[in-house]
Amino acid sequence: MNEGQPARRPGGRSARVGAQVHQAVTDLISERGYGNFTVGDVAARAGVADSSVYRRWGSLETLLTDVALTRLNARSPMPDTGSLAGDLRAYAAQVAREITGPDGPAVLHLAVALSSTGQQGLRAGDILRADRMRQLQSMLDRAHERGERALDALDVLDHILAPMYIRVLFGIVPLTPDYIDGLVGRLL
Amino acid sequence: MNEGQPARRPGGRSARVGAQVHQAVTDLISERGYGNFTVGDVAARAGVADSSVYRRWGSLETLLTDVALTRLNARSPMPDTGSLAGDLRAYAAQVAREITGPDGPAVLHLAVALSSTGQQGLRAGDILRADRMRQLQSMLDRAHERGERALDALDVLDHILAPMYIRVLFGIVPLTPDYIDGLVGRLL
Repeated sequence: MNEGQPARRPGGRSARVGAQVHQAVTDLISERGYGNFTVGDVAARAGVADSSVYRRWGSLETLLTDVALTRLNARSPMPDTGSLAGDLRAYAAQVAREITGPDGPAVLHLAVALSSTGQQGLRAGDILRADRMRQLQSMLDRAHERGERALDALDVLDHILAPMYIRVLFGIVPLTPDYIDGLVGRLL
Repeated sequence: MNEGQPARRPGGRSARVGAQVHQAVTDLISERGYGNFTVGDVAARAGVADSSVYRRWGSLETLLTDVALTRLNARSPMPDTGSLAGDLRAYAAQVAREITGPDGPAVLHLAVALSSTGQQGLRAGDILRADRMRQLQSMLDRAHERGERALDALDVLDHILAPMYIRVLFGIVPLTPDYIDGLVGRLL
């Protein structure tokens, strides 16, 4: 159909509308920032009716969460290189590519905006984080089962993900390969 | 005048309005999240006219930046304990107190929301970060001048501030004294 999508995928039109709406969201976040646009703005940018957006996602927050989940999770299966150091380096490099890519900073801002402040109970973005942390822990557990040292997903969050997230959120880029390997080396 | 404010401070009424508007902003961020309220909402919550807010701050973004700057900077002079380890421990504990306090997570979300995505040029929140980093570097430079090891403010950002920021943004709290000292110990 269009580039990067399988040609005979069932539900082609629905998938195309989904992709257009997702792209409209990331464009609007990049241009205006989170919170500065409505469902109507997204629909207009995507060239679809407001009602199509509401019917499929129900609310702006659900749509935003869907975009963040899709962008930060589905695109990146966990590495399985056979060694803990290899897995962590590949994982860190993959996250760095995602969050510094064309819409990466916008999507990261979105993921943070959708996360709990600790005062309002669980928010949609917390599900994103929990899911991601489970995938990461599985990778670390595989290494431990092979006889390598045990690491907790929170260690990786603190010393590999958090520095990269904060640098991208604050615009302190690029994240060079040396910088990323340094984070992994320090943790190990 | 009211609690916590000097009684005969010049410009007392102006200071009181300022404090009410700031508190209204942090309340609204806690309750609704960044982006989900207008200058009108702030004015109504603070009990002042919309025009007072516009006259003083000009725009919602300027007001939000003023709140974030005041909350994250003015309240916390840099420690000067005589040793690098002591300074870092005191600084980390102070930041942890700020960002986990009653409005802390809301203010941190705000500071991140106001920071650059790297695609839009300098935003208001970047000034906040640059100012904070300069203060931090001065503290580190004092230690180096005393003959202690040289550290860069970015090392502190990566390995002390970033983990605490991300944990608070994602609602992974509390930040215990052991956790905070562990971050400092690992950096040193």
